[in-house]
Amino acid sequence: MVEETRDSDAPRVLRVALLGCGTVGAQVARTMLTQREDLAAKSGCGLELVGVAVHDVTKPRPGVPGELLTDDPAALVENGGADIIIELIGGIDPPRRLILSAIERGASVVTANKALLAKYGEEIYAAAEREGVDIYYEAAVAGAIPIVRPLRESLVGDQILAVMGIVNGTTNYILDKMTTEHQDFAAALATAQKLGFAEADPTADVEGFDAASKAAILASLAYHSTVRVDDVYREGITGVTSGDIRAAESMDCVVRLLAVARLDAAGRIEVRVHPAMVPRGHPLAVVSGANNAIFVEAANAGGLMFMGPGAGGSPTASAVTGDLVTVARNRLRGVENPAHPVYQGLEVAPMSETRARYYLRFQVADQSGVLAAVAGLLAQHRVSIHSVRQLAARAEDRPDTAALSMVTHVAREADVMACIAELEKTGYVHGRVRFMRAEGV
Amino acid sequence: MVEETRDSDAPRVLRVALLGCGTVGAQVARTMLTQREDLAAKSGCGLELVGVAVHDVTKPRPGVPGELLTDDPAALVENGGADIIIELIGGIDPPRRLILSAIERGASVVTANKALLAKYGEEIYAAAEREGVDIYYEAAVAGAIPIVRPLRESLVGDQILAVMGIVNGTTNYILDKMTTEHQDFAAALATAQKLGFAEADPTADVEGFDAASKAAILASLAYHSTVRVDDVYREGITGVTSGDIRAAESMDCVVRLLAVARLDAAGRIEVRVHPAMVPRGHPLAVVSGANNAIFVEAANAGGLMFMGPGAGGSPTASAVTGDLVTVARNRLRGVENPAHPVYQGLEVAPMSETRARYYLRFQVADQSGVLAAVAGLLAQHRVSIHSVRQLAARAEDRPDTAALSMVTHVAREADVMACIAELEKTGYVHGRVRFMRAEGV
Repeated sequence: MVEETRDSDAPRVLRVALLGCGTVGAQVARTMLTQREDLAAKSGCGLELVGVAVHDVTKPRPGVPGELLTDDPAALVENGGADIIIELIGGIDPPRRLILSAIERGASVVTANKALLAKYGEEIYAAAEREGVDIYYEAAVAGAIPIVRPLRESLVGDQILAVMGIVNGTTNYILDKMTTEHQDFAAALATAQKLGFAEADPTADVEGFDAASKAAILASLAYHSTVRVDDVYREGITGVTSGDIRAAESMDCVVRLLAVARLDAAGRIEVRVHPAMVPRGHPLAVVSGANNAIFVEAANAGGLMFMGPGAGGSPTASAVTGDLVTVARNRLRGVENPAHPVYQGLEVAPMSETRARYYLRFQVADQSGVLAAVAGLLAQHRVSIHSVRQLAARAEDRPDTAALSMVTHVAREADVMACIAELEKTGYVHGRVRFMRAEGV
Repeated sequence: MVEETRDSDAPRVLRVALLGCGTVGAQVARTMLTQREDLAAKSGCGLELVGVAVHDVTKPRPGVPGELLTDDPAALVENGGADIIIELIGGIDPPRRLILSAIERGASVVTANKALLAKYGEEIYAAAEREGVDIYYEAAVAGAIPIVRPLRESLVGDQILAVMGIVNGTTNYILDKMTTEHQDFAAALATAQKLGFAEADPTADVEGFDAASKAAILASLAYHSTVRVDDVYREGITGVTSGDIRAAESMDCVVRLLAVARLDAAGRIEVRVHPAMVPRGHPLAVVSGANNAIFVEAANAGGLMFMGPGAGGSPTASAVTGDLVTVARNRLRGVENPAHPVYQGLEVAPMSETRARYYLRFQVADQSGVLAAVAGLLAQHRVSIHSVRQLAARAEDRPDTAALSMVTHVAREADVMACIAELEKTGYVHGRVRFMRAEGV
């Protein structure tokens, strides 16, 4: 099939099948239909939309002709004769089966399916390589923001030291509301749901599952290794309190849900998703509302920042359509993009062995010797203190306590957790120790 | 030559010749030599540095073996048998002759030469297409920041509405100093020269020539049209005064040297380089020091921002090495990247017909009726006023004058220039009318 494309001199038309026609899919279909000539000029060939698989063929879809609709995606893939399949259904199955079936039939694939690639990417990339077809997925991470190509190509001659991203717009919107309007988590979530920035069931976003999939994809690209979503440490934002936000403010920081992929000193990959304090001067701190941003630190390039709309129908459709044109160009020339080389095969470091700065905050008995005891306990665990602040109790608090907050130097997660467990057992620490990791400091 | 690469099963080695070994070239050579295995794994083949053309072979170059050096770049291109030529000499000639000669010999080319591509890009791209070789130039615009691939591929399915960039680090450094440290232009330039951010002869930077070349390349990519450096309206920063910086501050704006490429209502390309006021809330306003940033507005993607080090040896070498790996991968598969389709052939709008908001500032006679006269004069020229501010004269100024500043709605350049000329001829305007375009408002 691929060879054929090189022989013909006639103006070529590539057949494109679309699986899924939600907000993104409908926008892709409309773009293909209304900008047919423009896309043909850019691709070097016509792009004919041959079918659109949907759940409900009776639902009206403005701008998408009813005769293209089918509720049988498997049949569309098997019998539609498509050169290119665009998968926008989401979730693991049926997309996994449909994509593998398309690849076996020699079709190239464009997808925005982060969950699938973060779990079964290895299988899908291998199938595409075996069959000599393309698999493109710029839209899977950070919507319209070009980050897959920059990591695969622009920065491929460099050594990536770290990738840190705000890759989930819903949680960034909520944290931004909590910061700028002093709402608590529940109120900010309700606002986000009312305005369409959060789903009725917000679990995938607020618990960090979505960000974890994207972290796995980014880590795989940056480190030429197979990193799966199950390798990613994941902590959502449901536990972030107004007190945490205020504490961050007092440190001239903001709280962001970060996806972090970093090479550690032992050559392992740290890959984690969690709320983190970010200094206001850091490029990631200025990312407001539902925007996404990715900060890449490379040995030669230095610090690069990519920012823009990370979700939504039109931005995601932009990325999908860019992939479609790229795949069409490749197909016309009878080639496919080489598989991303997974030659490093790096291990993922267990979370307990990752390193970061930590912010700790707790109530202590307001008596002499306590600060020395706390410092001693931390030192025993090789946790070194960068800065410390002790505030006398406020009137509404227990008068015999003081609020202690501190920022550590870079320390090992397991050591900090051990400190926290021990601190909570002492007589002079009252209640729980709140903590948050700090990045970009 | 290209066909051969597909037949052999032996581990392949591609021969690479480097033309120019300044800060960037030396870093590329060191990366190629010290990260040989890593680059081979990423490319799928060995990359052998076969020669480095320099001006002075006797000058010691740490990390670059003397036996690779030659002072005859033409001979290296003609007789070196290189598969890939990296051109980092800069300037128009000899690079133009060397690159065309390399292409004729079937070599692929990586270059960072913005001046050459902005002037002779059409000729070079056509030669590469004719010979079936690659020409890659990610480093030509904004150093390490990936912007060429995002425009060529990631965003190719979208309609680019505008590209606005801070693409010259020297001028951004100077304007940043003038803003944050209240230095005047001469002092800020001297500081920049002392710290190595500006050359002894700063003309190419401060007069906007460098930015104009980059603007031409960005406009060509965004609009699939041939835009040459001579098509770019160019105004440097040598005329920016401390008064302009203070005036911008009073409007909650900063002054930046912007490269702007935009589609106008008549479907023509506006392409211009000039100082502009940018609101502090705009992503481009936060770009400090010698950094670069490019803001892209697209119909579907919305506003995307790319930020990072725009110059310097290591960042530029990062972009060059990324291109080298990409070109090597293509060569291994016996293909080249398709030429960027120049199918739109859009006209460039004359500067007099471009549209922007304008900030005007001048002294007027402090008497009744003057504001009405000014407003009437602007209205005659279809220039509508967005906001206006009149301040009584300061003690050190003429007591009978007032300072008038205003921001227009979007207006046509020719109309605004006509207003300014007429205002300066009236009896009630004292002295010159200062103006600056405003973007991102």
